Amino acid sequence: MAGAIVGRLGRHPTSLLLLTLPRHAAAHHRLHSPSSSQGQYSKMGDPSERNGHGALTRVLFCGPYWPASTNYTREYLQDYPFIQVDEVGLEQVPDVIHSYHICVVKNKRIDSDIIAKATQMKIIMQYGVGLEGVDVNAATEHKIKVARIPGSTTGNAVSCAEMAIYLTLGILRKQEMDTAVNRKDLGVPVGDTLFGKTILILGFGAIGIEVAKRLRPFGVKILATKRNWSSDTLPSYVDELVDKKGGPEDMYEFAGEANIVIACMTLTSETIGIVDHKFVSSMKKGSYLVNIARGRLLDYKAVFDHLESGHLAGLGIDVAWMEPFDPEDPVLKFPNVILTPHVAGVTEYSYRTMAKSVGDTALQLHLGEAFTEVEFVN
Amino acid sequence: MAGAIVGRLGRHPTSLLLLTLPRHAAAHHRLHSPSSSQGQYSKMGDPSERNGHGALTRVLFCGPYWPASTNYTREYLQDYPFIQVDEVGLEQVPDVIHSYHICVVKNKRIDSDIIAKATQMKIIMQYGVGLEGVDVNAATEHKIKVARIPGSTTGNAVSCAEMAIYLTLGILRKQEMDTAVNRKDLGVPVGDTLFGKTILILGFGAIGIEVAKRLRPFGVKILATKRNWSSDTLPSYVDELVDKKGGPEDMYEFAGEANIVIACMTLTSETIGIVDHKFVSSMKKGSYLVNIARGRLLDYKAVFDHLESGHLAGLGIDVAWMEPFDPEDPVLKFPNVILTPHVAGVTEYSYRTMAKSVGDTALQLHLGEAFTEVEFVN
Repeated sequence: MAGAIVGRLGRHPTSLLLLTLPRHAAAHHRLHSPSSSQGQYSKMGDPSERNGHGALTRVLFCGPYWPASTNYTREYLQDYPFIQVDEVGLEQVPDVIHSYHICVVKNKRIDSDIIAKATQMKIIMQYGVGLEGVDVNAATEHKIKVARIPGSTTGNAVSCAEMAIYLTLGILRKQEMDTAVNRKDLGVPVGDTLFGKTILILGFGAIGIEVAKRLRPFGVKILATKRNWSSDTLPSYVDELVDKKGGPEDMYEFAGEANIVIACMTLTSETIGIVDHKFVSSMKKGSYLVNIARGRLLDYKAVFDHLESGHLAGLGIDVAWMEPFDPEDPVLKFPNVILTPHVAGVTEYSYRTMAKSVGDTALQLHLGEAFTEVEFVN
Repeated sequence: MAGAIVGRLGRHPTSLLLLTLPRHAAAHHRLHSPSSSQGQYSKMGDPSERNGHGALTRVLFCGPYWPASTNYTREYLQDYPFIQVDEVGLEQVPDVIHSYHICVVKNKRIDSDIIAKATQMKIIMQYGVGLEGVDVNAATEHKIKVARIPGSTTGNAVSCAEMAIYLTLGILRKQEMDTAVNRKDLGVPVGDTLFGKTILILGFGAIGIEVAKRLRPFGVKILATKRNWSSDTLPSYVDELVDKKGGPEDMYEFAGEANIVIACMTLTSETIGIVDHKFVSSMKKGSYLVNIARGRLLDYKAVFDHLESGHLAGLGIDVAWMEPFDPEDPVLKFPNVILTPHVAGVTEYSYRTMAKSVGDTALQLHLGEAFTEVEFVN
């Protein structure tokens, strides 16, 4: 164990090291979240083996986007000189990844070639939940753990749900509002209410649940699809949140009843492009589509064609097919389309909490403690 | 009574006339809303006296703004040739008002000079609730009734509450989102959640109640001020909606606790400019202000100065000091200010319902029936 803490701090037994940590740190990194994975340490061996550098545990943030993720993690770890937090451009990741023990992927695709270079890597993780860019099998082969930060405890799901409500209200009120202000018009356009609408939530995980909670008092009917409704992550009051529950096979029928569809699914090989021509044409004429999950859940052409025909009355998306998305893309030229810059989960609350999760994970790796903040997928 | 129905329809006793109305009309205009004023007819005398034209009951909409109000009312009344719906520009109102029996004011100021010219006028009403532009005393002197459409039954309050949530979420997420999309940035700016915030609702009438209902599941603390909490218009579950209730005298103390203030008050001589320098400086540094009621509740200079100093982190307003508001006004140049074109209540649901209220009121005046759709204030 002592091998992990030589260097700037000198050589101490672990118990002494803990005493030398700033007080809030010792308190923080011992907060155990009930949803986190206990006992991962034992699976991963002794930290002195894992952390070959001895003195430093090095954390790599991939790419310049979502800059607060890096900045807030650095701030959280500022009193721990034995944790180093770096950020490099997306293209440089393959060249430097061999020096790091933890990789926070953000929107970097981490394929088997990159993983093969990550010779000291212990944990590949997301600053959030979406791990679709990580080749988990390759990571497993290289004995690298892959982790997400559970959204239900960090404010990520709450933040995304608020954004879903914001985008929904935005497209219901119509983007011509801006034109009206600039033209000195008043009282136009006529918007639409959430009140009285039927809403289909695709994917009823942590985000879908938070969306439904917030939609309930708007006077709406809520339909939701989910692979497994017997999941123990569902709240006991789920029947108060959802008027009609279905499996993936009910998507098209439910779409025919809904005025608004909100995509809240994880992106997997099964869900990629799931909002396709068949699905969108099953939606009612004049209905609205919102996506706060992952851009590629939606088939671009299906969405484009149905906006062009007027079948879709509005599109509100925080995520796009390519990111960053071309602001000149033709899909943004339709009158009632809103794109926000992938910020659904990017709130002070959520980002500070997730900075703590990354920071505590780095501290736990360094100290050989059980991981309390993340959920491993391999 | 027969005098009221000569002309295009010929001369019929009322009972026969009702039989000649299209079926849905007879059904519609007999729907009695529990919150409406019964028995106004008896106060207002015989309709043949009121409607000197005999054949036509003439309804005047003032000005070009909120065009759907006129259009939807015309559509609702399309099968009743004995009700004529006209719209004239704001400046022409004094020249033509003598020919009308009902006036829908919208944003026209109806002062004692105009009222003196309204020699056939029976009812001055708002397409909504705000009657601050009408000289009610002068109307009373001229035996003209003044009416609003209660917001709680028409969808107006619901629509305004949805807009309040939209504007609040918008300023929490910050207007730099648009810049980020155009710059091809991702994951900026860091927004703020509603979750965890304390919200002060100024004015807890029909709109304030609907705002509180919708805010509740966002995980917020709700403070509200109201002149009279013993009002029988409050729902029985008001204590579940509001964490802390106060009177007007508690405004400043509550402002000091709140992160977000939402103005939902009626504009009166007492509330004009109530959000003044004293109030805004009582708000927390970095707090947010939303107004979906009337522009002049806010003191322009107080708001401007506190945006300039950074004391206010954002301003979301559907209503402005002058309307339409100059899109080049300096207050709109601050980075986190949203103005929408006075559309909070302008939704398909609310505007169709209020068109029915105006239409039924015209039919009831014409037929000498009790008024079921409006609330008289004199």
